[in-house]
Amino acid sequence: MAPAPLRDLADRPELRCLNTATLGYREPVAVTAQRAAAAGFGWITLWRSEIDERQAARDAEAIRAAGVRVRSYCRTAYLAHASEAARLQAVDENRRALEAAAALGARELIAVVGGLAEESRDVDGSRAQILRGLEALMPAVEATGVRVALEPLHPFYAADRSLLNTIAQAQAWCETLDPEGRHFGIAVDAYHVWWDPLLAASIAGAGPRIRAFHVSDWLRHTQEPLLDRGMMGDGVIDLKRLRAMVEATGFDGPVEVEIFSRDRWWKEDPDVVLRTCRERLRTVC
Amino acid sequence: MAPAPLRDLADRPELRCLNTATLGYREPVAVTAQRAAAAGFGWITLWRSEIDERQAARDAEAIRAAGVRVRSYCRTAYLAHASEAARLQAVDENRRALEAAAALGARELIAVVGGLAEESRDVDGSRAQILRGLEALMPAVEATGVRVALEPLHPFYAADRSLLNTIAQAQAWCETLDPEGRHFGIAVDAYHVWWDPLLAASIAGAGPRIRAFHVSDWLRHTQEPLLDRGMMGDGVIDLKRLRAMVEATGFDGPVEVEIFSRDRWWKEDPDVVLRTCRERLRTVC
Repeated sequence: MAPAPLRDLADRPELRCLNTATLGYREPVAVTAQRAAAAGFGWITLWRSEIDERQAARDAEAIRAAGVRVRSYCRTAYLAHASEAARLQAVDENRRALEAAAALGARELIAVVGGLAEESRDVDGSRAQILRGLEALMPAVEATGVRVALEPLHPFYAADRSLLNTIAQAQAWCETLDPEGRHFGIAVDAYHVWWDPLLAASIAGAGPRIRAFHVSDWLRHTQEPLLDRGMMGDGVIDLKRLRAMVEATGFDGPVEVEIFSRDRWWKEDPDVVLRTCRERLRTVC
Repeated sequence: MAPAPLRDLADRPELRCLNTATLGYREPVAVTAQRAAAAGFGWITLWRSEIDERQAARDAEAIRAAGVRVRSYCRTAYLAHASEAARLQAVDENRRALEAAAALGARELIAVVGGLAEESRDVDGSRAQILRGLEALMPAVEATGVRVALEPLHPFYAADRSLLNTIAQAQAWCETLDPEGRHFGIAVDAYHVWWDPLLAASIAGAGPRIRAFHVSDWLRHTQEPLLDRGMMGDGVIDLKRLRAMVEATGFDGPVEVEIFSRDRWWKEDPDVVLRTCRERLRTVC
């Protein structure tokens, strides 16, 4: 059977999402929302640091007024810590993030789960702490109706940002946390997963768990995998092929552009960035 | 059943190997061999660029005279290329490397297989080219008696250095290339594999395929994963636990120290580096 054709992203704002990180956090969220809407994005994904969570409803209103909706909210506090107090504090933080996400009308809270606990070399122990921290969020997830999307991060970040490093691992965690698949899903970010020898099988296996799909590009000779992401098409990732895998699972959400690029795109005029993103969504994604 | 105790590395030169990269390639191989012997290493692993392969027997003699043996030889030329001519040239290069390895008395040629072919985004296609390139080495492997040890590299290098990124993937390739397990094995380098969610199962599954075990450390906040490796004990890897996994498969080779550290250890006095390595092998590996 031939694979289904890719969805046509042209003239479909509801299939395009802008992660605000792409513009380098240089302007207030309301301004970013206006720019995104003008550039043909139907959704934005926000970061906690960009808004005042005590007044999330006010930001939500400004975003709606600009003509876009909030798709996901970034991101959880790290969950593995040396002290029980710090672990509990992280769970509290994440509960507040879920509440703010709900006030913003976001579908998912993106979970970047954290690396090793401070001073620890215990990968399995830290992973177990992270799982317990996620488990502790279940009541808030149920109360808010906001899902948690576990985002596997590139293994480069295993020590200090995330011990969740492959889609298959995220899938196994979802099965443990939420066998019925109501509350915990997966965010697939091309930048983090493109190298995975088990990529096709993992995406097929994750199936309806996939709740978000992020694109950018891996520059062939990157030296710095945190803030040196490439614009789609400028690197080595076959984004059309990856999107085909994701869409074959039935994924019907927007394609979200998320580019951390301190020295290139964050120095560019925001409207130029957005026009380029939209063009590349059409041509290479 | 309790796991077998770790082998005691103290006073066992035959269980200690120095990869010459650890000293930063600052001195002739014969001098490095003398220093290694004096510091209690029974083996060294060499790089192609360090010797004149047309006169490998002469270097081999100098190394033997210093009192150490050559364990492995680094490394294969990259195997995925845009042109057939470049692919054939890489196979020729690797044949010459196997011959030099034999002349040096090395047990294994370390295979760093290469990333994507030039200008390519085709991960599967490049991996297929790499497999064909390895397959083409079989006659030279049989003729020389030198094994090929496939070294999975950290996914950070997938684009430009290696599309072989996990132990399980290396194991699958070995099964394809050499079902009987005579010619193709695996080099496990702590730095490259420590983060793998499937680490314990992959090592157990690789079993007698494991032909080399390399140690160094991953610095928690490393910015540069090529030349910023840490001394064992200075980073986040639980090296004793990893060695226990490897030794539980029956691995009886030496523990090889391989530290690429341009700004720290390559600037240190070579004998201090070697003393530190030996001490850390005793205390944290």
